[in-house]
Amino acid sequence: MNKQKIPVAILGATGSVGQRFLEMLINHPWFEVVELAASDKSAGKKYSEATNWIMQTPLPEKYANMIVKKCEPNLSAKIAFSGLDASVAGEIESAFASSGYYVISNARNHRFDDDVPLIIPEVNPDHLQLIRSQKYKGGIVTNPNCSTIGLVLALKPLNDNFGIEAVNVVTMQAVSGAGYPGLPSLDIIDNVIPYISGEEKKMETEPLKILGKLNSNKIDFADIKISAQCNRVAVIDGHTECVQVKLKTKTTIEEIKKVWKEFRSIPQELDLPTAPKNPIVYFEEEKYPQPKIQRNIEKGMATSIGRLRECPLFDFKFVILSHNTIRGAAGGTILIAELMKSEGYF
Amino acid sequence: MNKQKIPVAILGATGSVGQRFLEMLINHPWFEVVELAASDKSAGKKYSEATNWIMQTPLPEKYANMIVKKCEPNLSAKIAFSGLDASVAGEIESAFASSGYYVISNARNHRFDDDVPLIIPEVNPDHLQLIRSQKYKGGIVTNPNCSTIGLVLALKPLNDNFGIEAVNVVTMQAVSGAGYPGLPSLDIIDNVIPYISGEEKKMETEPLKILGKLNSNKIDFADIKISAQCNRVAVIDGHTECVQVKLKTKTTIEEIKKVWKEFRSIPQELDLPTAPKNPIVYFEEEKYPQPKIQRNIEKGMATSIGRLRECPLFDFKFVILSHNTIRGAAGGTILIAELMKSEGYF
Amino acid sequence: MNKQKIPVAILGATGSVGQRFLEMLINHPWFEVVELAASDKSAGKKYSEATNWIMQTPLPEKYANMIVKKCEPNLSAKIAFSGLDASVAGEIESAFASSGYYVISNARNHRFDDDVPLIIPEVNPDHLQLIRSQKYKGGIVTNPNCSTIGLVLALKPLNDNFGIEAVNVVTMQAVSGAGYPGLPSLDIIDNVIPYISGEEKKMETEPLKILGKLNSNKIDFADIKISAQCNRVAVIDGHTECVQVKLKTKTTIEEIKKVWKEFRSIPQELDLPTAPKNPIVYFEEEKYPQPKIQRNIEKGMATSIGRLRECPLFDFKFVILSHNTIRGAAGGTILIAELMKSEGYF
Amino acid sequence: MNKQKIPVAILGATGSVGQRFLEMLINHPWFEVVELAASDKSAGKKYSEATNWIMQTPLPEKYANMIVKKCEPNLSAKIAFSGLDASVAGEIESAFASSGYYVISNARNHRFDDDVPLIIPEVNPDHLQLIRSQKYKGGIVTNPNCSTIGLVLALKPLNDNFGIEAVNVVTMQAVSGAGYPGLPSLDIIDNVIPYISGEEKKMETEPLKILGKLNSNKIDFADIKISAQCNRVAVIDGHTECVQVKLKTKTTIEEIKKVWKEFRSIPQELDLPTAPKNPIVYFEEEKYPQPKIQRNIEKGMATSIGRLRECPLFDFKFVILSHNTIRGAAGGTILIAELMKSEGYF
Repeated sequence: MNKQKIPVAILGATGSVGQRFLEMLINHPWFEVVELAASDKSAGKKYSEATNWIMQTPLPEKYANMIVKKCEPNLSAKIAFSGLDASVAGEIESAFASSGYYVISNARNHRFDDDVPLIIPEVNPDHLQLIRSQKYKGGIVTNPNCSTIGLVLALKPLNDNFGIEAVNVVTMQAVSGAGYPGLPSLDIIDNVIPYISGEEKKMETEPLKILGKLNSNKIDFADIKISAQCNRVAVIDGHTECVQVKLKTKTTIEEIKKVWKEFRSIPQELDLPTAPKNPIVYFEEEKYPQPKIQRNIEKGMATSIGRLRECPLFDFKFVILSHNTIRGAAGGTILIAELMKSEGYF
Repeated sequence: MNKQKIPVAILGATGSVGQRFLEMLINHPWFEVVELAASDKSAGKKYSEATNWIMQTPLPEKYANMIVKKCEPNLSAKIAFSGLDASVAGEIESAFASSGYYVISNARNHRFDDDVPLIIPEVNPDHLQLIRSQKYKGGIVTNPNCSTIGLVLALKPLNDNFGIEAVNVVTMQAVSGAGYPGLPSLDIIDNVIPYISGEEKKMETEPLKILGKLNSNKIDFADIKISAQCNRVAVIDGHTECVQVKLKTKTTIEEIKKVWKEFRSIPQELDLPTAPKNPIVYFEEEKYPQPKIQRNIEKGMATSIGRLRECPLFDFKFVILSHNTIRGAAGGTILIAELMKSEGYF
Repeated sequence: MNKQKIPVAILGATGSVGQRFLEMLINHPWFEVVELAASDKSAGKKYSEATNWIMQTPLPEKYANMIVKKCEPNLSAKIAFSGLDASVAGEIESAFASSGYYVISNARNHRFDDDVPLIIPEVNPDHLQLIRSQKYKGGIVTNPNCSTIGLVLALKPLNDNFGIEAVNVVTMQAVSGAGYPGLPSLDIIDNVIPYISGEEKKMETEPLKILGKLNSNKIDFADIKISAQCNRVAVIDGHTECVQVKLKTKTTIEEIKKVWKEFRSIPQELDLPTAPKNPIVYFEEEKYPQPKIQRNIEKGMATSIGRLRECPLFDFKFVILSHNTIRGAAGGTILIAELMKSEGYF
Repeated sequence: MNKQKIPVAILGATGSVGQRFLEMLINHPWFEVVELAASDKSAGKKYSEATNWIMQTPLPEKYANMIVKKCEPNLSAKIAFSGLDASVAGEIESAFASSGYYVISNARNHRFDDDVPLIIPEVNPDHLQLIRSQKYKGGIVTNPNCSTIGLVLALKPLNDNFGIEAVNVVTMQAVSGAGYPGLPSLDIIDNVIPYISGEEKKMETEPLKILGKLNSNKIDFADIKISAQCNRVAVIDGHTECVQVKLKTKTTIEEIKKVWKEFRSIPQELDLPTAPKNPIVYFEEEKYPQPKIQRNIEKGMATSIGRLRECPLFDFKFVILSHNTIRGAAGGTILIAELMKSEGYF
């Protein structure tokens, strides 16, 4: 254990998000994973035996021999990244926070608790202050849904500069978003599934909290109308979204490209280790962005945008692409932790 | 040659649409393919040598040994189905029509000629009368784009019953829509391509002509605002489309389902050989329609619909699915020919 | 219930093989499904609620409302098709047979019981006689593994005419062979999995019993050396196999094609309802057979073969393709039942 | 232009192999691409306009603005990497070599010329000496076929230690092996194509030259019997091969794993920039190697092996996986150039 580094635990370490946390944290300059916790079924086993490692890089030796612990608040690390399944995340995360742990969670359960911030570090870093009003001895911070994050990164500069009235979005989402084993191959080869349980509601509500204003210990939700339609397609990683926006202020295509290209925020100013240099990358080629080509840009932490054009029904339409298990899950969560550390929360 | 049957020729017989014409016409009760025409490169060869047959049923013996002719208006059959590529279809089809042939075409070239009907037999059979005002000795009738047909079938009963003000559509289109060889496999495995050249404009304009009113030898285009976004996904056959509509008259989900389920039109009344019994099939399961599961319903001639629900931005949203190379190309074109025959055009 | 038809039950009716049985038996001229049995979890529910129907044709009304029963030998139909999972098939099938039922099973459990025939109706119909020596009041007959059937159909005429010494086979198997949910999509998109648990052993041993000789109530296994290597690929249906054979008698490519093309057997002579007219279809085009193109030939009941050529290491090599869930599972099992009925076993 | 670096040209720069050369050479410590040559159609254009860049990393600025030249031997760089298509490579490469250029080629045309070495740097680095006997003022060196390289890397230690008598191989090859546009998506989604033109002959002959002995200016071909069967599957990158070997000396599984794991050769001793530390990586998990998981190991330059087991027909069988466009094309060719530089050929 490196004494300079902050010890962290992973809750739900054997699942696909848990694995991605481990892969991204193996050489992290600030955090060191010292404890792995998972279901009772896995507890007591060596990690290499408890998990079915599905990452494309080999399971690091360091983790392979760690003994998996139960998800109970008696871990030594006081900061926990949660990749827990929503079926259990609610109670476990509350228990940890009550016992003094800081939980940065990828699960949906606490996202709409009044005192729990729902954070995209480039978008609403100020919302972190909500933690101070939490009933917990420690605290809970949540990461938005994988299809929300890429979208809101693209919307943020538009909202700041022109004001957004309405957003229409249709997604084509990667199978990794369903976890592992997730979607049966029989369901998706040569197919599209035009339904993802609960996903549309998340996309229609989460942006309102994220783009909302912090107002003395509560968030005033943004007043934007959103409609979402969510589809699953035969792509491994990378959610593609067709977006339309209606703006409050008249503007031009060139103006919009400019605010996207110039968009920088706190994580870039603080030069956080996982922050992309360019949170938004715009492509001029009509055929871009594509998941196979652009998902790994900025190590999977940027939103790629393309095809900005005028829309007969809204003001503008465009296509976005973001990596759902990096920026949309583990990477986004780690970036929140880096922000918290930089701002002195731990 | 069956003397009871009407002899027909296929223009562009070696391409993927041409092949589908042959497959669908092999046992047709009214039409018999007696001539195959294609590019100069293919002319003079046996069909089996000139074509790279990609259908999933074997190449019928009957066609295999036919000698391919040039696309010149000296064929014996006076009715021609055209699966020609748009790069050559314009001139060739005009030449045939000028020489007295009836050309029913799948190509885009003449779709917006003032005197050329753009027909979906269930939607605007009356537009056929435009032929009578054509400058040609024969005539040209066109079939809409593959992504337009399924959509307009779904819109027709809505427009008739409630009036449509606006339509927003995002497509996830099958690779067969790009013909053969069409899309390289390197481009689409594990990928989505958010751009199809020319497709969005077709979807934004063709429905206006099809849903327009015939007014003494011209069509008054429908006054509907349409926005389309078109994507290519890793599906063999079947275009999936996420649709939103704004209606002139207030209505309910149940009312809309009712008009869809009850929708019948001239092809059903005439019991045309290729007409689906139910042009629209509605599915209550949230996960439907899916291309792999529903594309072959009604032998590929119906539009499947599902997930009708209210929309925060429009009035309603839903998902449609239709077979792009059957209803959207060869099958739709054959159905037009059946309608023309029934109505005495030949 | 049609009084002319023989009532049958389906064991494991909710699984993917069970569903295929139902799809194939819906209009069967001899058999009528009158009872559906499955796990205790499903028992008592309407079939439409107990199953996640994944066939490409809609769930027939007739089955949708049937109440699923437990897999206990108190069903009224005395003939049962078993699509049970191997984890439970052994005991349940024995219990049914002991109670006087005839079980025709797709599960592996009893395939190597000394007194249980392992049948491909075109290959070893005489082995059925083994039933008469069974200890059961009823009887058990088994259908081979999905990857074995297509192979042995191709080998049978070679063995009869030239004698086989050795067989080498490498498979590329469809995902439907793993059942449902089966293989996770994350595992197979853009991938090959070079391992299928237990599959190679089945392919190296089952052909020896099937091609063996019935010798007064026991089977003398064939003396053929077989090596199998099994892979999973991103194909929905249809197992492709690269095969090499060493023969006892010298022969020619033309001679082999001839014995394949002329191959007919008892099911063809009896004109059984599910029997393919041509059990083996040979393709001369070098690029065939392919799963997408040939899997449905003869309604999925034939083995397609192509690329027969001399081999530097064995005598000949070739490629076969057969539909794993039709000929390789439900269809093969139904054909066995038809053979049993024709030969007076029930 | 870095004066320390050796200037090189790319022939066939706009194709998929040419692009991969550029991607791999962008930061190469020894070589710098100073000229791009391609077909007359591309010559004179900016590279960014002449090519359809399909790599997963963006087109480097440095190349984007270079003007493409004709493939004529008047380039300034005296070393050329050739990714030319076989239809033109033969003559162009001869012309360059005659004019004093060193051509290191990925094309098949000169592979079997008596005086042209066919090199895998870890396998037969000594064959490079053949260049000295070439009729050319410069020289031609060739890289083997993509499916040959991974195989021969695995065979080399077996041949050195135990002697190989016979090899049987069945491949499942990635679509990128067919170049771009290459295989139509309609041909490979939900499919396997059991035929790749010319591929089996390459695999049955190239290893004999590579594993042959240099004997005063000619190669005595190895005396090994090889049979190959080649299939195309829906994988982007990475050829999987099921291999069986018959050895001259009896040995054990453990012994074989040992010689694979310990295998090092000249490129490793010289620490060449593109050389993998471990040319062969063995995996104990039964489900490995898989293209999606292992293709990028050692930056795509290693052969992954797994599933070594005894074979009923040969002595042993196993599965190999290697990256067809890195080790099997551009990367293998660059490694040859590094070897030539190290050994003073230029």
